[in-house]
Amino acid sequence: MVNITGWGHTKFGKLPDQSVEDLVIAAGQEALRDAGISGADVDGIWVGHFNGGMVADGFPSSLAMGIDPGLRYKPATRLENACASGSAAVFAARQAILAGDARIALVIGVEKMTHLSIPEVTVALGHASYQKEEAGLSFPGVFAQFASAYFEKYGDHSGALAKIAAKNHGNSVNNPLAQLQKPMDEAFCATVSERNPIIAAPLKKTDCSLVSDGAAALVLVADDVVGGMAKAVRMRAVAQVNDVMAMSQRDVLAFEGPRRAIHAAYDRAGITVDDLDVAEVHDCFTIAELLVYEAMGLAEQGQGARAILDGTVFADGTLPVNLSGGLKAKGHPVGATGVSMHALTSAQLTGEAGAMQKDGATLGCVFNMGGSGVANYCSILEAEAVN
Amino acid sequence: MVNITGWGHTKFGKLPDQSVEDLVIAAGQEALRDAGISGADVDGIWVGHFNGGMVADGFPSSLAMGIDPGLRYKPATRLENACASGSAAVFAARQAILAGDARIALVIGVEKMTHLSIPEVTVALGHASYQKEEAGLSFPGVFAQFASAYFEKYGDHSGALAKIAAKNHGNSVNNPLAQLQKPMDEAFCATVSERNPIIAAPLKKTDCSLVSDGAAALVLVADDVVGGMAKAVRMRAVAQVNDVMAMSQRDVLAFEGPRRAIHAAYDRAGITVDDLDVAEVHDCFTIAELLVYEAMGLAEQGQGARAILDGTVFADGTLPVNLSGGLKAKGHPVGATGVSMHALTSAQLTGEAGAMQKDGATLGCVFNMGGSGVANYCSILEAEAVN
Repeated sequence: MVNITGWGHTKFGKLPDQSVEDLVIAAGQEALRDAGISGADVDGIWVGHFNGGMVADGFPSSLAMGIDPGLRYKPATRLENACASGSAAVFAARQAILAGDARIALVIGVEKMTHLSIPEVTVALGHASYQKEEAGLSFPGVFAQFASAYFEKYGDHSGALAKIAAKNHGNSVNNPLAQLQKPMDEAFCATVSERNPIIAAPLKKTDCSLVSDGAAALVLVADDVVGGMAKAVRMRAVAQVNDVMAMSQRDVLAFEGPRRAIHAAYDRAGITVDDLDVAEVHDCFTIAELLVYEAMGLAEQGQGARAILDGTVFADGTLPVNLSGGLKAKGHPVGATGVSMHALTSAQLTGEAGAMQKDGATLGCVFNMGGSGVANYCSILEAEAVN
Repeated sequence: MVNITGWGHTKFGKLPDQSVEDLVIAAGQEALRDAGISGADVDGIWVGHFNGGMVADGFPSSLAMGIDPGLRYKPATRLENACASGSAAVFAARQAILAGDARIALVIGVEKMTHLSIPEVTVALGHASYQKEEAGLSFPGVFAQFASAYFEKYGDHSGALAKIAAKNHGNSVNNPLAQLQKPMDEAFCATVSERNPIIAAPLKKTDCSLVSDGAAALVLVADDVVGGMAKAVRMRAVAQVNDVMAMSQRDVLAFEGPRRAIHAAYDRAGITVDDLDVAEVHDCFTIAELLVYEAMGLAEQGQGARAILDGTVFADGTLPVNLSGGLKAKGHPVGATGVSMHALTSAQLTGEAGAMQKDGATLGCVFNMGGSGVANYCSILEAEAVN
């Protein structure tokens, strides 16, 4: 097993004065402090970063050496799997530990986006699409196709999407690290207006996640190290499933990659969705969160709205989803997102989530996705007694 | 242990009709055929790719699904460590096998460069430098600083550099996959001329590696699978060492990162440089190969020229270096290079290297480098009897 024993997390948002390197250093130093270790204790560094042309730092792995002089001469590697680059780094670090090559691993996810215009960010993120068939299609355009196909098959569920947006904005009020730490009225989210225009029909601005700068970091350790740590969260099971790039080759509504990753993780952990206390899932667009409810088994295909309409996924429901505010309100610095999800779920499972805390949470689920269901990562995290 | 049981390798060079996806598919299919397995046998895919803005495919991992329909729903991950991205993929796949997450791994390295102008390639590769201090400095400029510092401290060794270039061009004649499969006269390499101009003083055109398209692939397997394979090469030991990005913080001539990686690999394998039969090393510039001789222990610091002047590293010497022609003549599609080095060294160790073959080679060394000694990967590969 591999264990999470510390984390760091910058504020997400517009951080014009902080470079990629600054963000990596801030999150990494906080994670080392949180775990009570120094750079010399670390056996390797894994950096999740998408980039896609957004910054000139095309080789970011060794930027992490700035965290602590003790990191010099350690292996450092960058992982990329689009918006799941952060989880790619977590998973690679986990394998290095299980391989016996590392006992203590430092994982950092980072992205810097807000220095660009929205059209520039859209082009950069579009590099995560299948260029041969989808070049020029924006990600709002991709998920608008998902929403249109969904509405055509199962009826107009824009009301449920507005409710998802309002839920995540409501949750963000309790997350001091969130980019938009403010509630947003469901009626506002449900209505096209000057401040909530259509971005790609049927998706409105409130259906889209944010453009953000930020970084998050984790310290992962092997079982033989965890005894000396002040706190720990067990990575009880993980699963990664990649699907083909081309949307033309996928039944998008089946959301097969996410479903397979999540259920493989459940199976490996020996759990069902009913055992989960909290989940952080990939709401890059509200329609994605709706589809994730179905992939998680919270509802049958076509019935995802039930999980939000019956209150299941609200903070006071049986399985709160995105207590952090999600990508929707916490922000979505793409390379940082998967690491952030693991960090904030770990905070829930150690009772350190502050105002976001779900009392007594012991089992959490992270679902992070690259592209539109192309790179799919699920982790089942569990509270762990140490000392 | 992890074992290499098959490989594929496209021609390196100007391949205008082949996309990144086409190259990945060609190399990957050849590797599966070579190992005698199908996509369904594979547990995961690792893709080494630098990109740096050279192509729009910013999320290449799942492009590998095109190799074989049996790969769908397997994990696929992209690794980046500048010009060592290929080795980053090899090493991550190895860890996944040792972690028990995979028994059979498919590794692909790929780059597409020749569709761009030289100034455009220079800018893209420059993204592998430390932007805060080195933005705008080209890689020829970086290694020109290495050469200048070396010449200043140890005297002008441009003659030795010309000999390295001529050696690698000479070797390339035997490599049908090489971009420039032709000899090049040492006198030509030693002389500034219209056809061999100064690129960044003191480096001439013949001191620089090539701009190339290409891909290479490997099949890696766990020990419990290797018995069923037709051939195998053991990854006897590996080491990865990253150094800080900033040249201002490094004694460049000490080449500390490469030296540490190579010697850690020797130590883990329990060998010395004298035990090696062949080596493929990172001659992105001739001065880099000279410094690698020193880092390998073929000569003391400042004495690297001896290894080329006394014939040690020639095809008929005691330790032939870059029998493939090296980055210098084989070509350097940056993400593919590390995988190519492992593939061609494996071919040497199974006696399948054709006209490049060093008779009776049983122990080989791969040294692949990202940036100017920043990301350093060394593998010690060993011939292995199967069946």
